[in-house]
Amino acid sequence: MQTIRVATPSARYDVFTGSGLLASLAPRIEKAVGRLPRRVFVLTSPEIWSLWADTFLCSFSESPVALFLAPGEQHKTMASAERLLREMIRAGGDRGSLLIAFGGGIVGDVGGFVASIFMRGIPYVQVPTTFLAQVDSSVGGKVGVNLPEGKNLAGSFHHPRSVFADTGVLGTLTDRELRAGLMESVKAGIIRDRALLRFMEENAEAILDRDPKALERVIAASIRMKADVVSRDERESGLRMILNFGHTVGHALEQVTRYKAMLHGEAVAWGMVAALSLGRRRGTITAGQLDRLESLIYRYGPLPALKLRARKIVAATGSDKKNVGGVRRFVLPLGIGDAGVVEDVTAGELEAAVGYMLAKAKMAS
Amino acid sequence: MQTIRVATPSARYDVFTGSGLLASLAPRIEKAVGRLPRRVFVLTSPEIWSLWADTFLCSFSESPVALFLAPGEQHKTMASAERLLREMIRAGGDRGSLLIAFGGGIVGDVGGFVASIFMRGIPYVQVPTTFLAQVDSSVGGKVGVNLPEGKNLAGSFHHPRSVFADTGVLGTLTDRELRAGLMESVKAGIIRDRALLRFMEENAEAILDRDPKALERVIAASIRMKADVVSRDERESGLRMILNFGHTVGHALEQVTRYKAMLHGEAVAWGMVAALSLGRRRGTITAGQLDRLESLIYRYGPLPALKLRARKIVAATGSDKKNVGGVRRFVLPLGIGDAGVVEDVTAGELEAAVGYMLAKAKMAS
Repeated sequence: MQTIRVATPSARYDVFTGSGLLASLAPRIEKAVGRLPRRVFVLTSPEIWSLWADTFLCSFSESPVALFLAPGEQHKTMASAERLLREMIRAGGDRGSLLIAFGGGIVGDVGGFVASIFMRGIPYVQVPTTFLAQVDSSVGGKVGVNLPEGKNLAGSFHHPRSVFADTGVLGTLTDRELRAGLMESVKAGIIRDRALLRFMEENAEAILDRDPKALERVIAASIRMKADVVSRDERESGLRMILNFGHTVGHALEQVTRYKAMLHGEAVAWGMVAALSLGRRRGTITAGQLDRLESLIYRYGPLPALKLRARKIVAATGSDKKNVGGVRRFVLPLGIGDAGVVEDVTAGELEAAVGYMLAKAKMAS
Repeated sequence: MQTIRVATPSARYDVFTGSGLLASLAPRIEKAVGRLPRRVFVLTSPEIWSLWADTFLCSFSESPVALFLAPGEQHKTMASAERLLREMIRAGGDRGSLLIAFGGGIVGDVGGFVASIFMRGIPYVQVPTTFLAQVDSSVGGKVGVNLPEGKNLAGSFHHPRSVFADTGVLGTLTDRELRAGLMESVKAGIIRDRALLRFMEENAEAILDRDPKALERVIAASIRMKADVVSRDERESGLRMILNFGHTVGHALEQVTRYKAMLHGEAVAWGMVAALSLGRRRGTITAGQLDRLESLIYRYGPLPALKLRARKIVAATGSDKKNVGGVRRFVLPLGIGDAGVVEDVTAGELEAAVGYMLAKAKMAS
């Protein structure tokens, strides 16, 4: 087991990663929050619960009240949040209650958001069950729901009291989910961790074959990168923006396909290809570096086909949350293992980058 | 004009109160937040806007985007919040936008809540237009909406950057609204400010006749009390709970009458009568003090009739947000100008207090 510390101006907490955490959750949570309150809620998905409820519950002397969220971005809504808040009230929840978000990124985002606004905020704990949620969304306190106008447009900064990333639960992920999740680790390598990048290049087979040691190393390094960035810039006023590498175009892809055609990691993978090509045009990476980084992305593919118009994708980037005062923010690669934010990307550059991405997608399919 | 400072661990801001603030809002807001952003939103009610839009807008070189909330607790919902968030996105709102909540307590609570979750939080300014909002809800950062299960059950702590309480706009309040609002000042006197209490006893006629100097003194003293308590206990972990004096039974009255039969201040007034009688039974106030404080409440009446069952009211206190872990929290008067929180109030005591209140209501009607 590894313990990674997050320390921001508003919160300090530990992320635990390793195998077997799930079966000893209750005492671990008690250690993090003090005595368990009278009402503990667990938000999960029906699928996760049918697989893991027994393991989850075995360490609790009193079972938490289970709340459910059906899978899919279409349920990551204000309406779902309101339904959950109401269920918590009716089940006797109060200001002292605790919520455990037990599931993938959507469960974590909705659970954290509900915890942030239930009676003006109660503590919560993240128990992420997907690769993506373990390495990315469960750490850093960004929680929220989608609006019809775009992703994560309503939300809060509300840090968990603890994160328990049990690598043992990843066994039930499909290959596609694992590959999509690994894209966030590829991102972590590209923007800030050359050692992780090299490890993922050299051990792709072991990682994709789910070798426990290889996977744990990737997960721990990815969490460490995220925790470090969040600790330095909690509110995304500067450095933290680099975590959005690949996400400007990635979010646009998800939006125009209505969050149905591809997994988040797959959309981000294509978004990274677009961002790399933009970096190449600007000269922030060399042709050799573009090749190397693009190859790494495809190594963790296959990526989904994109039957989309460039113009539609570019238009969808307009509502990106990173844009402030009409300025379009974009994260560019800077060589290998570094990235930076620019504000002067033109519509023309973005169209060219999206065009490059679509051409690559055409070649691949 | 008076300036009252709020200083909590998470925010520092000024509350300005006086006449004529509305016509010079833009430069005052700029002073508080720095340069005005590209998109400024003003959330208001159709009534307020039709009365005050010209005065409000005269100091702005570019008009803010107006958003509307119809009056009434029935619109203080998650659905309203979502509609407003969506309108802001469609009108080009971004992370740098500013929201001005211009209206009564409901506009302030919903506006602050929307600001707290729009793209994970943008700054906002309170421009309260009712007596109640000026002396109470605009200060302290408590924002939120109702759920069908109870009032303010979803929300955040999100402080405004500034509060501008223009006493000049109070002229359009009805007498009933003014009297209901003054109940929060009566509360301020009872729980923490003997000088204010005495001033309200000795100058009731001038205050109710809207003598500007008398009103301003009451408003400034009430804000000062609230600002002081909030500065000492931002998150309501202790002292701040005394602000809920009269609110346990008051909220229950509002809930069982579905927020339709009485104004918030009227419900709190009856709630204070119940709390005073409970204090008398426990001996925390003398019979003489009960008489004196009750008389003051009635002086700022008339209070509405209560055709309700005691049991129903007591049952509705069960979902009070102050209750944690099954413990029923209750604010008791301690002599004149002081109050404290107890956790051992029994259902029997509560029934007796509610019975006392209902008997008084019967005598009055």
